[in-house]
Amino acid sequence: MTSRATAERLDRADPLAPARERFELPAGVVYLDGNSLGAMPAGTPAALDRTVRRQWRDHLIKGWTDDGWLDAPMRVGDRIGRLIGAAPGQTVTGDSTSVQLFNALTTAARLRPDRRILLSDGDGFPTDRYLAASVARMLGLELRQVPMAELPAALDAYGDEVGVVLGSPVDFRTGETHDVADLTARTHRAGAVTVWDLCHAAGALPLALDADGVDLAVGCSYKYLSGGPGAPAYLYVARRHHAAADQPLTGWLGHAAPFAMTPDYRPADSMARFRIGAPHILSLSALDAALDVFDDVSVADIRAKNTGLGRFFIECFDARLAGLGFELVTPRDDARRGSQVTLSHPDAARLMDQLAARGVIGDVRPPTLLRFGFNSLYVSYTDIHDAVTVLGDLAEANRRPHDRTAPAQRLIGETHVAQ
Amino acid sequence: MTSRATAERLDRADPLAPARERFELPAGVVYLDGNSLGAMPAGTPAALDRTVRRQWRDHLIKGWTDDGWLDAPMRVGDRIGRLIGAAPGQTVTGDSTSVQLFNALTTAARLRPDRRILLSDGDGFPTDRYLAASVARMLGLELRQVPMAELPAALDAYGDEVGVVLGSPVDFRTGETHDVADLTARTHRAGAVTVWDLCHAAGALPLALDADGVDLAVGCSYKYLSGGPGAPAYLYVARRHHAAADQPLTGWLGHAAPFAMTPDYRPADSMARFRIGAPHILSLSALDAALDVFDDVSVADIRAKNTGLGRFFIECFDARLAGLGFELVTPRDDARRGSQVTLSHPDAARLMDQLAARGVIGDVRPPTLLRFGFNSLYVSYTDIHDAVTVLGDLAEANRRPHDRTAPAQRLIGETHVAQ
Repeated sequence: MTSRATAERLDRADPLAPARERFELPAGVVYLDGNSLGAMPAGTPAALDRTVRRQWRDHLIKGWTDDGWLDAPMRVGDRIGRLIGAAPGQTVTGDSTSVQLFNALTTAARLRPDRRILLSDGDGFPTDRYLAASVARMLGLELRQVPMAELPAALDAYGDEVGVVLGSPVDFRTGETHDVADLTARTHRAGAVTVWDLCHAAGALPLALDADGVDLAVGCSYKYLSGGPGAPAYLYVARRHHAAADQPLTGWLGHAAPFAMTPDYRPADSMARFRIGAPHILSLSALDAALDVFDDVSVADIRAKNTGLGRFFIECFDARLAGLGFELVTPRDDARRGSQVTLSHPDAARLMDQLAARGVIGDVRPPTLLRFGFNSLYVSYTDIHDAVTVLGDLAEANRRPHDRTAPAQRLIGETHVAQ
Repeated sequence: MTSRATAERLDRADPLAPARERFELPAGVVYLDGNSLGAMPAGTPAALDRTVRRQWRDHLIKGWTDDGWLDAPMRVGDRIGRLIGAAPGQTVTGDSTSVQLFNALTTAARLRPDRRILLSDGDGFPTDRYLAASVARMLGLELRQVPMAELPAALDAYGDEVGVVLGSPVDFRTGETHDVADLTARTHRAGAVTVWDLCHAAGALPLALDADGVDLAVGCSYKYLSGGPGAPAYLYVARRHHAAADQPLTGWLGHAAPFAMTPDYRPADSMARFRIGAPHILSLSALDAALDVFDDVSVADIRAKNTGLGRFFIECFDARLAGLGFELVTPRDDARRGSQVTLSHPDAARLMDQLAARGVIGDVRPPTLLRFGFNSLYVSYTDIHDAVTVLGDLAEANRRPHDRTAPAQRLIGETHVAQ
């Protein structure tokens, strides 16, 4: 059931297997850290070169109009919108997730000026917590941070004081999923608005922001979207909030007529009001190219595969890692598991270094978590099999002190990975 | 005095003339809009390709450490610091000028919590005015906007109520310069702190932030620094303010130990606290490459040349454009003129379009201003001569209605530009 032959059979039956050709991955590497930084799409270098040499060099300042740079934040935003269930005209790309979170949280709080509590996921990614604290302090709000699972109870307890609820569909550490529709509905019943952090969900899990009635959302594009290191973030604001949205980052490109350069700020009627400053065109063009890989792929198919990859990882875990000091942190239930598997082990950091030396890349969240993320477009069942096999070998070898001096071996080879 | 032969003689004597080879400019173009978007340095495409294919593709997540991405905001910041008179460790790159302005103005105001007035340049670039208004509103401050020349009088009038003064060393419309040292000293005497917008000065004019006692400064890197369209902005904070600096954009990469992912925000002791979110590595690597062109060039030499180019432009203006409806907006006094010349003409927009059709690129600031910027590293005296000559030809032709149907001619050719 967990043999390499099984993995190979699963790969042969995988309709997304050919998508791996759309990426360039270094030889001899099993890359299970695409939930931190996605691999490079094969089309990126040429797209970037085109932007630099056919647009910037040749068209100079006219690139802003003739090459569509000025509209790129909204155009690329709409491409992301398709992946997160947002109709066109509600998603803009730019700046970093931290900046977008600050803008989104402040804008959300101003939609509910009579409410004094900002309620947020206490297990959220650090920047979410830091920015929530900053916004709460700046606006004189009270910040309450509780685990995602306790947000409904917190809403019940002081719902009519809550203005904003900040949550994430996927716990970045454990990979546990949370129900966007349900928490959004509860938030609305309490009279508050939601801000969702989609970083660990977009491009991996089905999202339906419009259908679920989400108010605002932010995310990064360098994880499952493979936009490149530090690729621009994005912001979603539901159309019904556009007219009232009163953001603090009143950059000139959000003006109704930026080039009129009027003394006073008058925001654009549309999502363009969230464009802020000059977009990072080079980074943005790499993201634009990366989104090509999603053109003929459905998020449902991506989700079906990463569910299968996670299930297979857990089967391999049961077969190979039992009794070696590991615990499975991620839920076994497919529906409650995102596109990653997290293990805990007392020796997590050392094991991850050793894995890297064998060509298996994941990451560590201190002190004890090992994270393995699955991008359905380039991770195979064989990758999963090989990674768990090597992890088991390492954990076993670490128990035998005399083995520690054995030279690191690359993972990929005819014999080593035989199961 | 303003013949093409004179221009050619000036070019032959120009010690910076060889620097033009460090850029790739399209054939047949006189580019006088580098104060809006700098031309492409010749080394940029290869540097970007290296980042994408040798770093991202091959090193994946390890690029953050092994390729120095994590330190890039400070490392590249220090390279800009050298051009603005900032010792290392006080300049960080990232996000857009608008975002950096918001962060800088809020941080500055928090350094003077007992002061209720934010005083700013009423002729500043629109985003400066919009962000100053947003920050003032958010913090409950009173915003007073007066022309740069009246800021000293305003400081005298209500100095002990002023917390922050926002100004620019160069008026983006007129090209007039303002004395950073003098206004900073006056601001300090009033007990306030300065925020300078360096967008139209950095890389063109000598700046001495440390020596002048500047408190905070921001700028973009896509004008005279040629970092590329929407290249990351930068923020300078004088070292003496680091410990007390209390910024609103408390992104996780500004944390003292980002990867410890602690529940509470604890800012880095150093300038790294201003790193905010994940840096846009692709755009940042283009900027890094662009800064190579400054490695063996002094800002003093750059300033000497753009002073000469401006003076020659004005001589050509006097000789060629008199009586054609133009007015010189920029000061004739070398010391009061930045690296641009601005003219006004009732028919500005049409003239600029016609210029573009002849290969001369400047820009228009509505309704009547024509701006011409001089990047000393790639603009020649011959460029200036040719641009003014064509502008004169066009203005004359526009007076003769029957000429309007004449086909547009490219500027550069053996006969057309003979003076």
